[in-house]
Amino acid sequence: MTLTAQIYDRLSSLVVSSGWRRGKEAAPRPEALIESARALPGLRSETRVMALAVEVLDGYAALDDAGKQVFFDALRDGFDPDPEALAGAARAYLDIGDPAALETLSRLAEPPRQELLRRLNMAPGGTARLVGMRADLLRLTGRDKDFARVDADFRHLLKSWFNRGFLELVRIDWRSPALLLEKLIEYEAVHEIRDFRDLQMRVLPPDRRCYAYMHPAMPDEPLIFVEVALTEGLPDSVQRLIDETRELLPPEKADTAVFYSISNCQAGLAGISFGNLLIKNVVAELSRELPGLSVFVTLSPIPGLRAWMEERAKAGETAIAKLLDEPTPAALSAQTARYLLLAKDGRGRPRDPVARFHLGNGAEAHRVIPGADISKRGQKQSLGMMVNYLYDRRRIEAQHDEFTESGTIAAPKKLQELARKTEAEARQTDGKKKK
Amino acid sequence: MTLTAQIYDRLSSLVVSSGWRRGKEAAPRPEALIESARALPGLRSETRVMALAVEVLDGYAALDDAGKQVFFDALRDGFDPDPEALAGAARAYLDIGDPAALETLSRLAEPPRQELLRRLNMAPGGTARLVGMRADLLRLTGRDKDFARVDADFRHLLKSWFNRGFLELVRIDWRSPALLLEKLIEYEAVHEIRDFRDLQMRVLPPDRRCYAYMHPAMPDEPLIFVEVALTEGLPDSVQRLIDETRELLPPEKADTAVFYSISNCQAGLAGISFGNLLIKNVVAELSRELPGLSVFVTLSPIPGLRAWMEERAKAGETAIAKLLDEPTPAALSAQTARYLLLAKDGRGRPRDPVARFHLGNGAEAHRVIPGADISKRGQKQSLGMMVNYLYDRRRIEAQHDEFTESGTIAAPKKLQELARKTEAEARQTDGKKKK
Amino acid sequence: MTLTAQIYDRLSSLVVSSGWRRGKEAAPRPEALIESARALPGLRSETRVMALAVEVLDGYAALDDAGKQVFFDALRDGFDPDPEALAGAARAYLDIGDPAALETLSRLAEPPRQELLRRLNMAPGGTARLVGMRADLLRLTGRDKDFARVDADFRHLLKSWFNRGFLELVRIDWRSPALLLEKLIEYEAVHEIRDFRDLQMRVLPPDRRCYAYMHPAMPDEPLIFVEVALTEGLPDSVQRLIDETRELLPPEKADTAVFYSISNCQAGLAGISFGNLLIKNVVAELSRELPGLSVFVTLSPIPGLRAWMEERAKAGETAIAKLLDEPTPAALSAQTARYLLLAKDGRGRPRDPVARFHLGNGAEAHRVIPGADISKRGQKQSLGMMVNYLYDRRRIEAQHDEFTESGTIAAPKKLQELARKTEAEARQTDGKKKK
Amino acid sequence: MTLTAQIYDRLSSLVVSSGWRRGKEAAPRPEALIESARALPGLRSETRVMALAVEVLDGYAALDDAGKQVFFDALRDGFDPDPEALAGAARAYLDIGDPAALETLSRLAEPPRQELLRRLNMAPGGTARLVGMRADLLRLTGRDKDFARVDADFRHLLKSWFNRGFLELVRIDWRSPALLLEKLIEYEAVHEIRDFRDLQMRVLPPDRRCYAYMHPAMPDEPLIFVEVALTEGLPDSVQRLIDETRELLPPEKADTAVFYSISNCQAGLAGISFGNLLIKNVVAELSRELPGLSVFVTLSPIPGLRAWMEERAKAGETAIAKLLDEPTPAALSAQTARYLLLAKDGRGRPRDPVARFHLGNGAEAHRVIPGADISKRGQKQSLGMMVNYLYDRRRIEAQHDEFTESGTIAAPKKLQELARKTEAEARQTDGKKKK
Repeated sequence: MTLTAQIYDRLSSLVVSSGWRRGKEAAPRPEALIESARALPGLRSETRVMALAVEVLDGYAALDDAGKQVFFDALRDGFDPDPEALAGAARAYLDIGDPAALETLSRLAEPPRQELLRRLNMAPGGTARLVGMRADLLRLTGRDKDFARVDADFRHLLKSWFNRGFLELVRIDWRSPALLLEKLIEYEAVHEIRDFRDLQMRVLPPDRRCYAYMHPAMPDEPLIFVEVALTEGLPDSVQRLIDETRELLPPEKADTAVFYSISNCQAGLAGISFGNLLIKNVVAELSRELPGLSVFVTLSPIPGLRAWMEERAKAGETAIAKLLDEPTPAALSAQTARYLLLAKDGRGRPRDPVARFHLGNGAEAHRVIPGADISKRGQKQSLGMMVNYLYDRRRIEAQHDEFTESGTIAAPKKLQELARKTEAEARQTDGKKKK
Repeated sequence: MTLTAQIYDRLSSLVVSSGWRRGKEAAPRPEALIESARALPGLRSETRVMALAVEVLDGYAALDDAGKQVFFDALRDGFDPDPEALAGAARAYLDIGDPAALETLSRLAEPPRQELLRRLNMAPGGTARLVGMRADLLRLTGRDKDFARVDADFRHLLKSWFNRGFLELVRIDWRSPALLLEKLIEYEAVHEIRDFRDLQMRVLPPDRRCYAYMHPAMPDEPLIFVEVALTEGLPDSVQRLIDETRELLPPEKADTAVFYSISNCQAGLAGISFGNLLIKNVVAELSRELPGLSVFVTLSPIPGLRAWMEERAKAGETAIAKLLDEPTPAALSAQTARYLLLAKDGRGRPRDPVARFHLGNGAEAHRVIPGADISKRGQKQSLGMMVNYLYDRRRIEAQHDEFTESGTIAAPKKLQELARKTEAEARQTDGKKKK
Repeated sequence: MTLTAQIYDRLSSLVVSSGWRRGKEAAPRPEALIESARALPGLRSETRVMALAVEVLDGYAALDDAGKQVFFDALRDGFDPDPEALAGAARAYLDIGDPAALETLSRLAEPPRQELLRRLNMAPGGTARLVGMRADLLRLTGRDKDFARVDADFRHLLKSWFNRGFLELVRIDWRSPALLLEKLIEYEAVHEIRDFRDLQMRVLPPDRRCYAYMHPAMPDEPLIFVEVALTEGLPDSVQRLIDETRELLPPEKADTAVFYSISNCQAGLAGISFGNLLIKNVVAELSRELPGLSVFVTLSPIPGLRAWMEERAKAGETAIAKLLDEPTPAALSAQTARYLLLAKDGRGRPRDPVARFHLGNGAEAHRVIPGADISKRGQKQSLGMMVNYLYDRRRIEAQHDEFTESGTIAAPKKLQELARKTEAEARQTDGKKKK
Repeated sequence: MTLTAQIYDRLSSLVVSSGWRRGKEAAPRPEALIESARALPGLRSETRVMALAVEVLDGYAALDDAGKQVFFDALRDGFDPDPEALAGAARAYLDIGDPAALETLSRLAEPPRQELLRRLNMAPGGTARLVGMRADLLRLTGRDKDFARVDADFRHLLKSWFNRGFLELVRIDWRSPALLLEKLIEYEAVHEIRDFRDLQMRVLPPDRRCYAYMHPAMPDEPLIFVEVALTEGLPDSVQRLIDETRELLPPEKADTAVFYSISNCQAGLAGISFGNLLIKNVVAELSRELPGLSVFVTLSPIPGLRAWMEERAKAGETAIAKLLDEPTPAALSAQTARYLLLAKDGRGRPRDPVARFHLGNGAEAHRVIPGADISKRGQKQSLGMMVNYLYDRRRIEAQHDEFTESGTIAAPKKLQELARKTEAEARQTDGKKKK
């Protein structure tokens, strides 16, 4: 940890009201916390519920990872429904089956973990802390199926609390609180923001916009944010797009809005997606403000392209092996079209995760662009290829439906033909070889 | 409906965005709505979910009571767990009993109604509309046990959404939005507020305060509010307390804060109590603002006193029969002490509902006051008697616990003795009679 | 003073922070205040300046009208430039005339009253109180020319403090603070607002708008406000316009915005006009929000019509005398056109004050409407006649210039001809008579 | 100009609405602007006034320094009162001397420049631009006495517009808008803030506070701000005070508030002081929030100490010459006491400008501290010496008065004796030498 990080860490813990008061006390034993957690659902006084909830959450925050693991183990083992009572209710339901038996079964089948989480949520700032707790849970136990039911309870409640109806779309600009802007620097996942100076270039210029979803119970924390560039015409290079020496464009002259970066901020809200709605709301918002905008498009990375190409090469596609050595724009475009439109994952979905997200939202795979990302990462991931996904408001719902129901990917005819032709050639060669 | 009411009604429906657009169309058939409701949980596109949720809620709002009853019948009958699937899961759980079987059982035992309600909540303004829907439910089916499980699902979700952590304590004064103040006039349950002029007297004078709980998803709707008077010494008459010709008291001279009216605003949030916490938070807030305050007390009605006295009189207590004819302050005080401290309801709790609320919060039954409410209603309910419940921050938790655990009612010794003595005399006389 | 008014009066004075503290002390002698006022410009400590400014303003507020008159007398007599020093500076300027002499003369010629007012403005809430002081000044001394220079100093500074750059255009609706809405009830000058219920009808319906200018130093006080009705087509009756049983119009269907009431709120800002700018800004604001609006028009009273007609009748115009007895729409319209377009006041300006305001703003006298105001006042002022002044953004500047420079009144040809013809007939008849 | 600076410069000019529209057009000729300026006071249409004001201010902003100088020359020469008219009025006043003559003289003696400035202030953002214009004026013509009267007019109006009654005290913290925080980095005059990370350390830690005065017409621009450290006991080293590795102090444990940096932000508001009031208001604010604070003190630089010592050394004080070579804490403290309490400027005021400011505010020169500023600048200015000025609320007014009236400097007896003794020794030695 750098000195700066240390100081900031100390600051943060001081600023958190609870840590503040306890000062340098030793971290609590996880066993004591679990005992408190177990007492929580039974309390009748609200004041005591709140006090104990604060105690549990403060104590949890002071645990190290080993302690947290102990805490999660207890969450897994000690908060399932009472097996005997539930078995009795199951039997009664099977025997009698009247509404009363059903109601009892429903009630007893809900894991007490849920009531625990609801009561922890009564603490001031409880929601943000539970989101953080789930982030820990996924980090520490993510691949362990035994914890699936613990996570299911978290997800169930967070889905309810982070219901779309509670979210607020907020424009973020250079007048936003520093506390909030700092989070953008921290959370930006696509194109790193180094510092406030860098951030300023994303939110201050007149041809830039930034929007986030906020939740009233986490007023200082964005849930997700999108960065938008206003341009004339489709962008074909992310470096040119964010070039600080570019000619600034008066927003009313722009005809295109480019979503060039979308970042989820809360690891603890994984699986509770907001991106779909965010893009639609931002399209609506921008259309209102700038009626001259007619095209809404992304400039998106293709994170899985090179890995897929290497896989194909290993599988014997010599054309691709050669392309990896000596890439040419045309051949790269052809293979990219094939990858995006035809390569599938194990569940039959588009293999590329970014493609899955945008196509699932109802967007069209509009154009593949060689040399669009000349950064190291761009080279490494996708040999510089990027893609424009197009959000056409008139077709978005239909395309979403077709994609969801039959897996149909919306794309211009030419691109589809290019993909098919490239695929056919690969098989043919493959066929020839096999002979 | 008066002309004014008609106009306002028309205004409201126009102002509601959705109604606005549909204009004069006929109300939808409830059957169509139910069909949409049934489709809602299965949709995968969020945009479609939101559109259909709006449709169902708008359609519901246009139904008359008969239509709503049909809708609720369908909610009751058509959204229980699938009996076969649930029976299968119950059997599997009984047979195997591993975590996977448990998880399946938990999942299938949750009524699909809950997912329906969660999805309706995605519509803009959905939360407020679901609160209204539950108010209708209670009004139309409140005593019908068949609907208990429908209400249980509403209550379950509303409890989660109206978690204390989401509530905001707001001071209401003459700078508050008229839209909000208007709600106070509508919802005041204890001492009627006739109009804005009347309301002004409750929030503008320097010796008055008003606080409410608000929820971010219902920005124009208070959930509960309390009216406070700042005084020197304990109040002994509600008429003097709100007398508009009284000498105004500079707040920094006050030593006592009197909670003279607490009103729940949302029938649809019945059973999800906020009052306890509201009082505690207001005590904290006022202590901060006005360090001179040392006493926090209510001036409360005794809604069940006369009814209980009449019951006693019918049961043969001639002393009470006589008192009802010719009330004297001393004898009334004695019977009031007896009623508050010793009379129980069928479940062994204090018989008076207001007493139950404050004693359950940890307050003390501090003083009974003859002639404290000379209004018609005051005479009718309680022969003019009122009571001060005292909120003493140092004792509130302990008293709450003792009340909850053993039913012990906190009260000054003198009052307890008075209650016991009066009770003893009644029994003695009773005894004598029986002999 | 009614009981209500008394209570409110007491409330207000209690709520004013300063009066609050002093309680029931006797009002100060005006002489003492004047002494303090005289000391104010000489103080060097800012803290003392502020304390003394508060003292003077509080003391002034406690004076009755006789005391205020004494205070104003002192303002008039005791705060002129020092005659000897000024005479010396005048002589030096005439003798030497260099920049230093000029600067001295400029400095000494500014009445010390201005520095007094600037220093009083340092008190918290000082600006609002000085506006109130000027309202008193105009009320008590308005016609006395000796006080013209006192008022000139007030006006000079208020103009500077209420500079357009400091004003804020605010939309007022049913979410506005009650404290502010209450002021609309108080200040509405054209169509009385009886109470909050009445006010609601002006700001809540979707086909109504209300805008005000606010100043940051008077956050609870509108300076001027305008009420707007959204309609289809030109309105021809104010009663129909504000009829509460009318069919409500969805705002996006409106093609016309009608300014049917403009009220100045601060008597103490008389002569510092905001109305012109307010209308222009509201036109801009509404155009942005509702692009379907194409016509911006007033529905205005003609306060001087009957008085002028009676004058004409007395002067021997028998046609008018007859018309006053038996009004017919056509003849009334003709005389109204003549009055609005041709009748002048002593300074050659349109005789009607409302006409002067709108024509001076660059509006066109668009249409005269018989029977448009059937209220008692409407009959009394103008025999029911009203007028639409039209604000056409493309012509507003040109019309303003022509009106300002050459007195040309913009009006449709037909109306101008009607006016001229009616005038000619009157003269002819007059001429005939004279023969 | 660095690349960053260039980009920012371009951004800023783009963001300014007007520059935005004009794009790359050539800067206007100053002569054309002056002509417009001359036309401005005569216009009658407010809309035209505003349009022309915008034109003049936009044009001015596009001028280079040479162009601005031409503009200021014209302001100086072309906007004095009309000499003939003024001479006439002066004569009339001398001859007649009645109120009318006085009024005319007052009116004509006010330079038309003031009306020009008032009208420029009508443009949106006009106030901020006029403040900027005055900053240019002082920068370009500050020492030229011919421009004194131009500046006098600016100062006269800015004093009126930036009246204390219009200012708002704002707490600045890490939730403040980045746009505002950025200004602190720019304006910090005492202890440089390098970047946002650095700034964070000034506003985020719980033992730090920052307050600013804001004006409603310049919502993004602080006028002045003060940085406060909360400590236990008097601080004796600025490096320790702002040490980022220090132990953070919970604010409720602090007994001392240290004003360690006060920065004026607007060069264009020079001579319109807010610092005095700011400190007093912050003392009041902090006392309310943290009742445990009992000492309010500065940790201030002594910018003129070394220069004065060198002067004294040159004048033959060998003790000081020696001290400059080999400083010792005791001897330095003695000379510092002497300098602060006894050294005067040409007008008999304390020679040190920071001392003048705080003593003029009513503070006490409480303690001199050797080694309190070991920075390069601290060594260079004052050989590491600093001083605590003490703001004692009970004595502040009295000390202010005594200082203002008789120049008496408040200081503890011991410090005064030290100063006198040191001075006496210097004179004695001096005397000896002269002999």
